[in-house]
Amino acid sequence: MSGASAATTKITEALSADDLEARLYEIGAERYHNLHPFHELLHTGALSRGQVQAWALNRYCYQAAIPMKDASLMGRIEDRELRKQWLHRVTDHDGYDEDEGGIMRWLILTDGLGLDREYVISREGALPAVRFAVEAYIRYVREQPLLQAIASSLTELFAPKIHRDRIAGMLKNYDFIDDKLMSYGTRRLNQAPVDAEFALKYVRQNAVRADQQQQVVDALLFKLNVLWIQLDALHLAYVEPKLIPPGAFQPEE
Amino acid sequence: MSGASAATTKITEALSADDLEARLYEIGAERYHNLHPFHELLHTGALSRGQVQAWALNRYCYQAAIPMKDASLMGRIEDRELRKQWLHRVTDHDGYDEDEGGIMRWLILTDGLGLDREYVISREGALPAVRFAVEAYIRYVREQPLLQAIASSLTELFAPKIHRDRIAGMLKNYDFIDDKLMSYGTRRLNQAPVDAEFALKYVRQNAVRADQQQQVVDALLFKLNVLWIQLDALHLAYVEPKLIPPGAFQPEE
Repeated sequence: MSGASAATTKITEALSADDLEARLYEIGAERYHNLHPFHELLHTGALSRGQVQAWALNRYCYQAAIPMKDASLMGRIEDRELRKQWLHRVTDHDGYDEDEGGIMRWLILTDGLGLDREYVISREGALPAVRFAVEAYIRYVREQPLLQAIASSLTELFAPKIHRDRIAGMLKNYDFIDDKLMSYGTRRLNQAPVDAEFALKYVRQNAVRADQQQQVVDALLFKLNVLWIQLDALHLAYVEPKLIPPGAFQPEE
Repeated sequence: MSGASAATTKITEALSADDLEARLYEIGAERYHNLHPFHELLHTGALSRGQVQAWALNRYCYQAAIPMKDASLMGRIEDRELRKQWLHRVTDHDGYDEDEGGIMRWLILTDGLGLDREYVISREGALPAVRFAVEAYIRYVREQPLLQAIASSLTELFAPKIHRDRIAGMLKNYDFIDDKLMSYGTRRLNQAPVDAEFALKYVRQNAVRADQQQQVVDALLFKLNVLWIQLDALHLAYVEPKLIPPGAFQPEE
């Protein structure tokens, strides 16, 4: 792959499972949203509290959609064991028994940032581009072949690094951020690798022909776009050129 | 409603929640599948072992679809609390922790009846009309408005009686049936009332206009058809006139 883009090079002959996995990691290294300038601004402390609020309330749309996406996926899985394997993704976010769940932990962040909880949950102030991207993700998982629906979760392979950078950077660089507010990311450090490992194993086993492997790559690229475009929308509205669409959240500063 | 059919009388003016509930029970009394002649044959011991096998393996299609239906419904619910309320319907059937789940309990029945488990799970021998009905149910829950998707579960209001009749009747009348084989129904005696109560409460609160109440009735009628048509298909193929479609299960007798 030297010199060429892993993301745009088509798979025309079947790769070994190891080579497919390597390709997926190369694509992540090219396109994961930790490379987005907004992420750099966020974790280096370059944003105002209002800009961090905008990020957190927009990102809530994505968080709230995850269990809907995963329940929709479960609803398409005929194999009971595979369906059971997928269940914890729903409960990780919705909560189960004593665990408050990831969505509630995200609301602890938005609470701590001084945002009204009902306003956040209503998603009224979220950027339309963010909502469209999140809706596109749910629809993709409902409608595309199961291999692609599952493969679209593979961005979790790259998640631990972004959570670590974000937690360390935000704790260090913002006086309005503390450990409690970062509990979502802290928990995901343990959850995401388990999820990613399962999806990767599924893909290694089930994408054996070149066309199937290209479908997996397409699914990963789709999902990378879903993540990237959310930061694009935030950057456009709240960093430069600060084009906040009508009805979207207006930071106080 | 005296003299008229509760099922076919349109709701043109909003009913009180109690009157709506009464109407739903009247419709159940008119159309629930405990009224089907096949059900009578089944629980009075009038069927051969082969006919009971045909029933159990066809009914497996319905059992296996329930968690797909309920996960699909969860995938459409934006309200986290409502989604969490619905979760146990998935785990009741798929199993969770120590509980083997309803699908596994149904396979204990088909095992006990001497059916090959892989054959049952493959659904290859199931009647196409049964499979179509089950698929229609999943599709209905995925595509119809949430009120109707939820209301389609209201047949559970009438389930405890059919489980009691079936358990008592089959235990008494078939020497190849024992308590272990009936464990699915025994467990549902406790689960179904909880489910039904929740859905009924939701419908009472959310169907207040006449058009919404008619939607609820339509959803119940749809679901009653899904259940009834499965017994029609079994009766046609295995009782009278014994028109078994190509590829469908052939009892040994």
